[in-house]
Amino acid sequence: MKSAKISEAVVRRLPIYLRYLTHLHNMNIKTVSSQKLGDILDINPAQIRKDLAYFGEFGRKGIGYEVEYLIEKIKQILKLDQNIHVALIGAGHLGHAILNYNAYLKDNMKIVAAFDVDPDKVNTEIAGVKIYPLNQLVEIIRQKDIRMAIITVPADAAQQVADKLAETGVNAILNFAPVNIRVNQGIRVHHTDVTTELQSLAFYLE
Amino acid sequence: MKSAKISEAVVRRLPIYLRYLTHLHNMNIKTVSSQKLGDILDINPAQIRKDLAYFGEFGRKGIGYEVEYLIEKIKQILKLDQNIHVALIGAGHLGHAILNYNAYLKDNMKIVAAFDVDPDKVNTEIAGVKIYPLNQLVEIIRQKDIRMAIITVPADAAQQVADKLAETGVNAILNFAPVNIRVNQGIRVHHTDVTTELQSLAFYLE
Repeated sequence: MKSAKISEAVVRRLPIYLRYLTHLHNMNIKTVSSQKLGDILDINPAQIRKDLAYFGEFGRKGIGYEVEYLIEKIKQILKLDQNIHVALIGAGHLGHAILNYNAYLKDNMKIVAAFDVDPDKVNTEIAGVKIYPLNQLVEIIRQKDIRMAIITVPADAAQQVADKLAETGVNAILNFAPVNIRVNQGIRVHHTDVTTELQSLAFYLE
Repeated sequence: MKSAKISEAVVRRLPIYLRYLTHLHNMNIKTVSSQKLGDILDINPAQIRKDLAYFGEFGRKGIGYEVEYLIEKIKQILKLDQNIHVALIGAGHLGHAILNYNAYLKDNMKIVAAFDVDPDKVNTEIAGVKIYPLNQLVEIIRQKDIRMAIITVPADAAQQVADKLAETGVNAILNFAPVNIRVNQGIRVHHTDVTTELQSLAFYLE
């Protein structure tokens, strides 16, 4: 299985499958059909079968998917069976909210350090995560073996932070700043901002 | 042009095109090729041409797209030429952060009311937006002609809020709560949460 061949749309659906499968597992349900998954998640069952078939033959005709096995497989595909240390840069309201979500992060994924330029925030903790001064970014990221970063700084500081991150071992960035950032090849950036979300949602207004 | 035939992936790229086109327009650039757009946005130029061709013939061979005209057309497609009043439900850290983004919302899209259950927050303002008690949700949404809502309440309150929203004229919801919400047909829900974003990003770790 080569990452490059799988479309981002497929990769973005996998965590949604994972969340619902985990819910089923918690309810002690052993198997589920693509039809049932599709009904609940409002995704075409044929699409679900196709998405999962990229990675192997996980389903059985007439039975469907074994919930526990499929959870394990999706975690492997998403690399969630590894330790994933995450840094957050920008401890404003949005950063604060995301640090509060840290408890919801499952498995081995954790925000292990936050960074800010505000001296009043530096050396405090939010939801158990220590806030370091931004000028220690490269040092702390290397020290804590951080591979993923969340950017929640204002728009005009985002590119500078991305440039600093490029000096570290980080190879995936989730950017919440309302601006495109440019990075070297080898660093994957997903961009999420409220404006873009609302604008695409507006398309569906009646 | 029928909304139902256009995939969500296409709709989600339109605001990204719009943001960069607006940037070009501000720099007084009159035309742009799909090649140039593709280079900057890291999207295949053929994909860009195909996306835009769903809605009409906007480009010209050898010249590309006229920036100002394409901006106007994308705004029409996304209904951003209409007044879009938005409500935000849940004025915690995430809600606060999003209200601070209200100034970044362009055109006629604005968050015009926020709601919370906390009596300390009710009747205060965040970034110029008044916070109403949750039990006035239906009344205020009708009164202010709100058609879109952002849910930023905790997971265990999200479905209840969605059920209340279904009683109003809202037909599009952006859900930040880390839980699936069920709504009637006719209401479009986009779900965005940090866990899902980070999990799909993990796929690309080296």
